[in-house]
Amino acid sequence: MPVRVAVNGFGTIGKRVADAVAKQPDMQLVGVVKTQPTFGARLAIERGYPLYVGGDGRLDAFRSAGIAVAGTTEDLLGKADIVVDATPDRVGREQVGKYDAAHVRAIFQGGEKPDVAEVSFNSLANFDAATGKQRVRVLSCNTTGIVRAASVLRGKYGVERWDATLIRRAADPTEVHKGPVNAILPTFQFPSHHAPDAQTIFPDLPISTTAVVVPTTLMHLHVNHVRLRRPPASTADVVTAFRETPRFQVFRSADHVEGTPQVLEFARDHGAARGDMMKNVLWEDGIHLSGADLFFFQAIHQESIVVPENIDAIRAMTGLAPNAGASIAVTDLALGLRS
Amino acid sequence: MPVRVAVNGFGTIGKRVADAVAKQPDMQLVGVVKTQPTFGARLAIERGYPLYVGGDGRLDAFRSAGIAVAGTTEDLLGKADIVVDATPDRVGREQVGKYDAAHVRAIFQGGEKPDVAEVSFNSLANFDAATGKQRVRVLSCNTTGIVRAASVLRGKYGVERWDATLIRRAADPTEVHKGPVNAILPTFQFPSHHAPDAQTIFPDLPISTTAVVVPTTLMHLHVNHVRLRRPPASTADVVTAFRETPRFQVFRSADHVEGTPQVLEFARDHGAARGDMMKNVLWEDGIHLSGADLFFFQAIHQESIVVPENIDAIRAMTGLAPNAGASIAVTDLALGLRS
Amino acid sequence: MPVRVAVNGFGTIGKRVADAVAKQPDMQLVGVVKTQPTFGARLAIERGYPLYVGGDGRLDAFRSAGIAVAGTTEDLLGKADIVVDATPDRVGREQVGKYDAAHVRAIFQGGEKPDVAEVSFNSLANFDAATGKQRVRVLSCNTTGIVRAASVLRGKYGVERWDATLIRRAADPTEVHKGPVNAILPTFQFPSHHAPDAQTIFPDLPISTTAVVVPTTLMHLHVNHVRLRRPPASTADVVTAFRETPRFQVFRSADHVEGTPQVLEFARDHGAARGDMMKNVLWEDGIHLSGADLFFFQAIHQESIVVPENIDAIRAMTGLAPNAGASIAVTDLALGLRS
Amino acid sequence: MPVRVAVNGFGTIGKRVADAVAKQPDMQLVGVVKTQPTFGARLAIERGYPLYVGGDGRLDAFRSAGIAVAGTTEDLLGKADIVVDATPDRVGREQVGKYDAAHVRAIFQGGEKPDVAEVSFNSLANFDAATGKQRVRVLSCNTTGIVRAASVLRGKYGVERWDATLIRRAADPTEVHKGPVNAILPTFQFPSHHAPDAQTIFPDLPISTTAVVVPTTLMHLHVNHVRLRRPPASTADVVTAFRETPRFQVFRSADHVEGTPQVLEFARDHGAARGDMMKNVLWEDGIHLSGADLFFFQAIHQESIVVPENIDAIRAMTGLAPNAGASIAVTDLALGLRS
Repeated sequence: MPVRVAVNGFGTIGKRVADAVAKQPDMQLVGVVKTQPTFGARLAIERGYPLYVGGDGRLDAFRSAGIAVAGTTEDLLGKADIVVDATPDRVGREQVGKYDAAHVRAIFQGGEKPDVAEVSFNSLANFDAATGKQRVRVLSCNTTGIVRAASVLRGKYGVERWDATLIRRAADPTEVHKGPVNAILPTFQFPSHHAPDAQTIFPDLPISTTAVVVPTTLMHLHVNHVRLRRPPASTADVVTAFRETPRFQVFRSADHVEGTPQVLEFARDHGAARGDMMKNVLWEDGIHLSGADLFFFQAIHQESIVVPENIDAIRAMTGLAPNAGASIAVTDLALGLRS
Repeated sequence: MPVRVAVNGFGTIGKRVADAVAKQPDMQLVGVVKTQPTFGARLAIERGYPLYVGGDGRLDAFRSAGIAVAGTTEDLLGKADIVVDATPDRVGREQVGKYDAAHVRAIFQGGEKPDVAEVSFNSLANFDAATGKQRVRVLSCNTTGIVRAASVLRGKYGVERWDATLIRRAADPTEVHKGPVNAILPTFQFPSHHAPDAQTIFPDLPISTTAVVVPTTLMHLHVNHVRLRRPPASTADVVTAFRETPRFQVFRSADHVEGTPQVLEFARDHGAARGDMMKNVLWEDGIHLSGADLFFFQAIHQESIVVPENIDAIRAMTGLAPNAGASIAVTDLALGLRS
Repeated sequence: MPVRVAVNGFGTIGKRVADAVAKQPDMQLVGVVKTQPTFGARLAIERGYPLYVGGDGRLDAFRSAGIAVAGTTEDLLGKADIVVDATPDRVGREQVGKYDAAHVRAIFQGGEKPDVAEVSFNSLANFDAATGKQRVRVLSCNTTGIVRAASVLRGKYGVERWDATLIRRAADPTEVHKGPVNAILPTFQFPSHHAPDAQTIFPDLPISTTAVVVPTTLMHLHVNHVRLRRPPASTADVVTAFRETPRFQVFRSADHVEGTPQVLEFARDHGAARGDMMKNVLWEDGIHLSGADLFFFQAIHQESIVVPENIDAIRAMTGLAPNAGASIAVTDLALGLRS
Repeated sequence: MPVRVAVNGFGTIGKRVADAVAKQPDMQLVGVVKTQPTFGARLAIERGYPLYVGGDGRLDAFRSAGIAVAGTTEDLLGKADIVVDATPDRVGREQVGKYDAAHVRAIFQGGEKPDVAEVSFNSLANFDAATGKQRVRVLSCNTTGIVRAASVLRGKYGVERWDATLIRRAADPTEVHKGPVNAILPTFQFPSHHAPDAQTIFPDLPISTTAVVVPTTLMHLHVNHVRLRRPPASTADVVTAFRETPRFQVFRSADHVEGTPQVLEFARDHGAARGDMMKNVLWEDGIHLSGADLFFFQAIHQESIVVPENIDAIRAMTGLAPNAGASIAVTDLALGLRS
């Protein structure tokens, strides 16, 4: 019997997680929650997702907009084994009582602080830690990117120290009220919150992160310098290590992928839903080994990268899959991530 | 027997036309032409499109890149009834002799001057004019948008005069070497080339166009003021006229489509291939009637809007469809444009 | 004896007006008001402008930041004949009672509604209307640009109708939290508020305005189509009319001023304070006459264009100058606007 | 007797160097060279700079444009003791023969390869190395920024290793044909050319640089992580070290300088010519010491930062100043850089 999954929130992350759940062979999407009768509400209905209303007394607003709803969040939780919370940052925490009262397991996003959950989660790094848990937190987009890469490098080469400069996109494409338009904005926090967040998974990871915001909407780009404990034989050895790991796309020089737009063009060309790129993106030309010093760029698609991790977290918590490899294989097949 | 279609060029337009041809029930894509063994060449092969090489003596370059090719442009033309020329601007003209020598009909894009063909073409406006022609030119993206709108307004209300300000995107998403980054650039040509181009279809259309370039990659936006000869009863009447015409998407206020990113988000959400929007996009809130004066905005997706017109042109020239309505119905069904 | 001028607010407009007042031979800047002890407060002191504190009980905040202040807004008003209100939009209205109580004349900015004052003002258009008034409102940046141009065209040629598309910059350079980053945003209001605002000066001006926001910080650009009542002899005749009017800069083709950045580069090259361009900017190549139809682009520097009008309004209200020409001549000489 | 200085090229760097030379008490600007009769040529004449024509047979073009010229490059070189070459990248090298033939000393810009000159130069780092030289090369903008910072850190604390990520602006404000508009573009070179270029000054500097291009026009931003040999007592100690060195501007938290636009607004507010910022810009909040690990951001104004170094190089080569301190003091006083 499939696990019954509810998705609370139907914005950038929620709509993608709902679509992803609907594609999994071992899950059933029992419904999604919206608080406003906007375009997203119609989209849920067009997709055939049962629609529930969050917040109090808003059923009328949906009805007067001619949008049929199946009930309230509480009604939905009563039909679910697990809920993926995709509400806005810091709103997730306010939902905890509701989820507990309904005796459903809950997955939170990286916009919540780590203590919202029993454990923070990344599929490649600590799948087993989520086994049987009631509340799990998936890392945010940038931290997911870092921890995926750390999973490759730590095990194989050891990490002595890691400097990452995170060049962050200013806003998602539809966040048209956010800037900056023509500026570079440093983040005056050392390290930025990403390093301690990565350390919720790998407490001993010697990483320092620095963040900067730039005027683009497409993807983040990480500039990494990692001192490895056990130097790889060659750059090619590192390339292979990334390439053989799930959820890494390593472009070749001949691909002429000059930057973030070409990455997303590749996704569009290959028919990815919404043109999403759920893998960490690296370039062969952008990986350079000098002794034990590894330099590499990676691009992170902020809109979609955490989607497969949310799916795996469902399996880890509910025992749907025995281990990370098994879950990742199913997730990635269903989402078209196997290249 | 399906019409056999070749596509010469596999860039922004060519790859979309090839995909669109492959989806039509009455057409067969016999091959596409690339001149360089780049990523696009691999994409063609992944999609199962027979790949041919343009230019002289480049077969070796493809072979040394490990890309299997089926022959040269001439070989492909020998297997085709019609070729869609999607080569870069002004390169199409150089292909005419080749197409004539192979006795294939040819469709050119709007980057070529009108006299490259016997007639310029738009599905809603002059489908029949392409019947039996050897060489037809599809309008460019902005002009296609204008002529579609003119097709609605001319017949129903008459156009006394039309002022259109075309706010053009700076570059396509992957044209990363083009600017401007932080500027507004007026085009010092009155009218801009769009007005005379629209008049290749409607010689008596009293339109003046002015163009400006701005730093965005997503879509063009047209600001229109049309003086109508026969005033509509109401704004709602005009909204209905657009909404009932194929290839128009009219967003409602409740859709919260604030600008060009939300238009493309709608396309992504609805599973459009590559997130494309092949329709003229209007907003109910962006249509305003004041007596005989009609004001309206329309957004034009420069990467894809001409694709359905290319498909219809194939049918018009080869007699595959008896009239515009019949062709548009099939094209739009195959491309998912019927809402 | 010079007129004693206070400036309430020391942001984008206030700091420029204060500097401009300080340069006038017939005015004395008696002080500026800040509400927060930020960088602007230090700047005022560095410039030698007496600094006063707005709002209640904030003197302590300035003192603890080590910034010497001369008193409160009320103290300053007691020393002034006139105050230029440069507080944020809609805050100006809240100051009216304070100004009245202090028996000072007041000038408001275009972010306030017209009824905040007895009359709206533009130097070229209605200087005399401000004579002896207690409260006058200077138009906003875009409307100032329109009304200046209307002053040229109305008198000389007559205006039968006018279509203006206002392509607005997204944010000022330092407004880094405002977007959009990669979008074109239509304004769903017909006409935009600019047309009725221009009609506060010229009630019979048959203008319709439409507005769009684009991702740039430098200047607005207006695309104009004006039907004139009395056709000019030639385009050159119109060029001359603009060129002979104060506060118009008409670039020649040989100047290679491609767009808004080159306009501001010209200002920087010529030593304009802050690189400002306080004139309406036109291009010879961007003015086109076709019968009675005049097309022209004009660029408007939103940060500075209203500064000379604020200075002239002071003279008009206080009788410092007998007429517009006399005031403009002094203002422009002092501000370096005579070319 | 003042040193007679010629400036060959009058673009972004050339016009600024010419202005700076004109402001020095011990130098005489004998003329500038333009190759085209464009706006820059008129600007030179407006500023009273004798104008000479570069290239062959172009005197006629200037005369027919009504621009008076004093002669050719050769004529100018005959009147100069030293020439600052500000021609486009890689054009400078072609001028060497001409300069040698005229027996003038020559200063080249960082766009030329190091071997164009006897030595590469930075005022703080190796002023004495240019003494008496015939050909000296000033570093490029980013490298000048790095070497200035290295001059502070090397001497006082020692540098064990240095990671710098250079987030580069896409284009200068008026380079409207350059992109990208909405992208992050990694530079696939490790290290980027900046590290070896800095090592032309400090051969033993253990620095690695990585570069990325982003869509903005204002300034570059460097993200630095430096491991020091002798740990400073505190972050404040480092702040003081930068603040006490010429050509560093360290903003305080209270200044609310959020990013690159606010830096340039500060320059505009303080009356800097062209709104330029010729100092390295740091933020107190953007300097962080953790043991021996120093993290800091610095912003670099690509249009102007090399100007004072060009001036100092003139003094170093010609013996106008006995040492770096003496030259920097005069340069910075004349340019308004002493705060």
